[in-house]
Amino acid sequence: MKFPAFLPLLAGALLVASPQAATAAVASAAIVAAPTTAAISRIDPTFWWVGMKNPKLQLLVHGAGIGSSTVTLSYPGVTLDGTQKLENPDYLIVNLTIAPDAKPGKLNLEFQGAKKVKYSYELRQRTTPGDKTKVQGVTSADFVYLLMPDRFANGDPKNDVVKGTRVSRIARDSMYARHGGDLKGVEQHFDYLKELGVTAIWPTPVVENDMPKASYHGYALTDYYAVDRRYGSNEDYVRFVQRAHQSGLKVIHDVVLNHMGSKNYLFLEQPAADWFHQWPSFTRSNFRDAAFNDPYASDADRKLYGEGWFDTTMPDLNQSNPLVATYVIQNFIWWVEYTGLDGYRIDTYPYSDRNFLMQWGEAVLNEFPQLGMFGETWVQGNGQQAFFARNILPPVNGFKSNLPGVTDFQSYYAINEALTKDAGWTDGIAKLYYALQGDWMYEDPMRNVVFLDNHDLSRFYSVVGEDFAKYKMGLAWLLTTRGIPQLYYGTEVLMKNFSNPDGLVREDFPGGWPGDKKNYFTAAGRTGQAGEAFTYVSKLANYRKTHPALHSGKLTQFIPQDGIYTYFRHSDAGTVMVLMNSNKDEKAVELSRFAERLNGFSSGTEVTSGATLSDLKLARIPGRTAWVVELKK
Amino acid sequence: MKFPAFLPLLAGALLVASPQAATAAVASAAIVAAPTTAAISRIDPTFWWVGMKNPKLQLLVHGAGIGSSTVTLSYPGVTLDGTQKLENPDYLIVNLTIAPDAKPGKLNLEFQGAKKVKYSYELRQRTTPGDKTKVQGVTSADFVYLLMPDRFANGDPKNDVVKGTRVSRIARDSMYARHGGDLKGVEQHFDYLKELGVTAIWPTPVVENDMPKASYHGYALTDYYAVDRRYGSNEDYVRFVQRAHQSGLKVIHDVVLNHMGSKNYLFLEQPAADWFHQWPSFTRSNFRDAAFNDPYASDADRKLYGEGWFDTTMPDLNQSNPLVATYVIQNFIWWVEYTGLDGYRIDTYPYSDRNFLMQWGEAVLNEFPQLGMFGETWVQGNGQQAFFARNILPPVNGFKSNLPGVTDFQSYYAINEALTKDAGWTDGIAKLYYALQGDWMYEDPMRNVVFLDNHDLSRFYSVVGEDFAKYKMGLAWLLTTRGIPQLYYGTEVLMKNFSNPDGLVREDFPGGWPGDKKNYFTAAGRTGQAGEAFTYVSKLANYRKTHPALHSGKLTQFIPQDGIYTYFRHSDAGTVMVLMNSNKDEKAVELSRFAERLNGFSSGTEVTSGATLSDLKLARIPGRTAWVVELKK
Repeated sequence: MKFPAFLPLLAGALLVASPQAATAAVASAAIVAAPTTAAISRIDPTFWWVGMKNPKLQLLVHGAGIGSSTVTLSYPGVTLDGTQKLENPDYLIVNLTIAPDAKPGKLNLEFQGAKKVKYSYELRQRTTPGDKTKVQGVTSADFVYLLMPDRFANGDPKNDVVKGTRVSRIARDSMYARHGGDLKGVEQHFDYLKELGVTAIWPTPVVENDMPKASYHGYALTDYYAVDRRYGSNEDYVRFVQRAHQSGLKVIHDVVLNHMGSKNYLFLEQPAADWFHQWPSFTRSNFRDAAFNDPYASDADRKLYGEGWFDTTMPDLNQSNPLVATYVIQNFIWWVEYTGLDGYRIDTYPYSDRNFLMQWGEAVLNEFPQLGMFGETWVQGNGQQAFFARNILPPVNGFKSNLPGVTDFQSYYAINEALTKDAGWTDGIAKLYYALQGDWMYEDPMRNVVFLDNHDLSRFYSVVGEDFAKYKMGLAWLLTTRGIPQLYYGTEVLMKNFSNPDGLVREDFPGGWPGDKKNYFTAAGRTGQAGEAFTYVSKLANYRKTHPALHSGKLTQFIPQDGIYTYFRHSDAGTVMVLMNSNKDEKAVELSRFAERLNGFSSGTEVTSGATLSDLKLARIPGRTAWVVELKK
Repeated sequence: MKFPAFLPLLAGALLVASPQAATAAVASAAIVAAPTTAAISRIDPTFWWVGMKNPKLQLLVHGAGIGSSTVTLSYPGVTLDGTQKLENPDYLIVNLTIAPDAKPGKLNLEFQGAKKVKYSYELRQRTTPGDKTKVQGVTSADFVYLLMPDRFANGDPKNDVVKGTRVSRIARDSMYARHGGDLKGVEQHFDYLKELGVTAIWPTPVVENDMPKASYHGYALTDYYAVDRRYGSNEDYVRFVQRAHQSGLKVIHDVVLNHMGSKNYLFLEQPAADWFHQWPSFTRSNFRDAAFNDPYASDADRKLYGEGWFDTTMPDLNQSNPLVATYVIQNFIWWVEYTGLDGYRIDTYPYSDRNFLMQWGEAVLNEFPQLGMFGETWVQGNGQQAFFARNILPPVNGFKSNLPGVTDFQSYYAINEALTKDAGWTDGIAKLYYALQGDWMYEDPMRNVVFLDNHDLSRFYSVVGEDFAKYKMGLAWLLTTRGIPQLYYGTEVLMKNFSNPDGLVREDFPGGWPGDKKNYFTAAGRTGQAGEAFTYVSKLANYRKTHPALHSGKLTQFIPQDGIYTYFRHSDAGTVMVLMNSNKDEKAVELSRFAERLNGFSSGTEVTSGATLSDLKLARIPGRTAWVVELKK
């Protein structure tokens, strides 16, 4: 998630949030008791399972006056450990232990206050460990497609506007309004994604964002336990994951730990003031992860970083409150067990409380060791990025990340520079070499997600000046370097624009809406270079899929020389040589320097063009070209 | 030491080394037996001490045919552990153990070969542990002055040309020739250095460089055990260190571990082929430290990095040969014990064998735990730089640095950018913040040496476009940031020029030679802005010297805002606030943001100007200005 200082998309949204509005939001952050008499309006988690590794379950019960109740239950294998009142009398914490032999069923809870209230709480049978179609994980064998569900395809116009939500219209001519895309729209284009060579879909958050403005982006969640009805129901999402799995596609769920939307019921009716980072008046984060581990950080900068709000509409969660931590941890165990999703992408990872991050990661991976996980780490420098991943470091000020992978911004910076600046000792294409060289600090850098652009960044095709040769170089790199490649929707058909100043990087995918003039979902619709681009990506991605050396083989890189960067992916399954010539002009490359990887091979085939390298002595590679060469004995 | 690819100074020298010459140098790298009959020409170490922590001593005996000798000795407390023949029959290794109770004296060694040869080997009494004037170490309380002894001052014209050396003239009009500077010249200007506020002198190497070309720089040593006679005798150097100590100046000895000069007797008459990295024909290093720890490095790149030669005239030592390792380790213990020097600066640190580096550091620090040590780490990125220093990392591929400090190239890159590029989120002055933020990986970043320029780099005053305001900002930063500040000779009087293309960054200090038209050693001679510059540096350096908060206090830095970077140095001894405004124009800075460090103070004094900050609410700081403010209660 981009911080507003850089992001006109959000900044646009913020224009409506005047300082007065911001103050009002904070003022409303008081403890407000619900107006009705005792009745349970909800319990989170909304249901749970027997058979979890962690036998503890903490319920957050919400109902007018419920806080003064005593609780009883009688269910074989379930023990009431106790209850805890909160500052707001309309909440009650109920702590349970579920024995390993407890059976699924309806757990009847009785709340005795001014009057008696009963609640039938569902305990389901856990299924994920046995069902191998669920929670498949995400690895470097995958090819991830990042899309914004509001902007990809509108499969069900009936849910464009949902009664009872705070937005009463769609407006495709506004970047900040909802456009009507949904889960069904994505589902209808599974075939398109398969053809492209995609193996995993990462939609920006699908959970409810019932915000009055700019809610389409999904990072201001208003209900931890509900899919946004503009995308579909909870059950629709479960089916979406199932159908994706049936189609050979994984699903990555986009997770926000740091903040919520200000229209979340937990913020509108706060359980206690200490559930949020409260400020006398609206106070924005400084957005500098550097303060997280700067040995010289001022207390003020560190506090502002971690406790400042992301935006006026995004209250900052106080995860150092154990009740908040447990609430959030349980929620993200719930989504995996409920849907069988395959991986989590964690938004604004470094912004959260350091102890909470460790607890969260440990708890989620304890239940789902195979879950794919990568955090957004929009940071500066190899060392800083590795700091937020599982690495070889000892704890630093008590923090030791247990996050399997990160979004690899360092190689993103590098590929941008490689294709837009002249090669030098450390400049231009040399940056790609240095970005990977820093991998010595990771536990496993193959888990890092590499990308050319995303929903917060200028689109890659625009960054390279709409130069198709450079575009192909970037894609070739993306699909052959180490890690998990991620494509941003539309980049495969040359969608363009800059995040700054107009921010039009979240446009609708052409063909996703009934009546669209262009339809890039079909081969016939992808006229001109868009079609060429699609074919290039598709060819390489499908080749990669079936050639383990390319996605899971070792990487050997050679120091760039004369603006040419050469590396190999190799395993018992084969060897692929990648030559990237960043120069304008053709270069003759003596291949003898790469003997250690070429030995035993006599020729090669360039994967995207089918051209043959008849010997492996000298390669004359055209300017601004990447060759992906499968070596032959 | 700069690699030739970047360095016209060296490149100039290399013009004379044609490919043919290079081949010849390698061809001469054969095993050549000395022409004379058995006699000991030398034994290294040239003498040793009783009372060392390590009781082992390994002698390298050189003499025609000496290799076939048997050795006997009789000396109380000294045991002959054995001898070892080498490929070259003119060498013999003799291994001794010296008991803790052995007394100093003359150890008579008898070599029985075709005829009997005797050698009286001196064992001296160790003095360094008791004599506190010796080996004082180097800390952040110091201010280091880097000079090239050939270029600083000619104190003794009699030693300008020394008979028997390979250079028969001085030529001050050539950057590559010797100019005649010497130790006595430095000594004659101790008062100048004291006035400037310097506390430690780092001359580029003073050891013998009896090379035919460009020997003035000192990095092609031809005798490990001799001071270059153009600078003085070994005894002169011992006295130089003594007198420096008497004047309150420490001495840092510049050390080359990676290579030697091709006219070194050990290369001209190689003990064995495996003392050097041998190549079929001259092969230059790729100069990429990245290959040292790149997890994806090719064998070819890694080998070329570590075993390629630095230059045609600089054979690369094979330190994985234990005999070579011991030879070098003993040599650098010898220099400390012999002279009482205070610190080592280790040239081209990352180029040496990884195991050797660990052994060398351990052995030297074992004998002299208080010795100051910092290595040249001309590398990219905070993580990579910290990798080569003592850090919090576990061993990486068996390497765990034991080097106390490094030359801080990351902050050097940063100060350059801070003063030459506009401020941005991560650009311009923000780079200074990020450079220090990366310190979390070091064991103690206060041991890092910070600098604005050195003998391999463009001079600072030229880099900032001869902008005196920027110059003062740089100096203010140098003398107030964390670490050990190092000044390159002449920067205090605005010496200028770029390392590329003309390389005139090693010019003579004005006034160092009899008859010089300008004499910047005297206040009267420092006319105009040179005098202003000297006064600025002197004022700040002397203030720093007497204000422990500034050199040894904690650092707290605040995230730069609006092109202004603010940090504090603070301890029980006081608090100094540094405000750096990188903008062209004046800025008003609200100081309330710094409350945590300003609390308890009511005003301040700008150290260099004496100006008063009458309150600590709002500071109007002029454009391109650094304020160093001592806070007052």
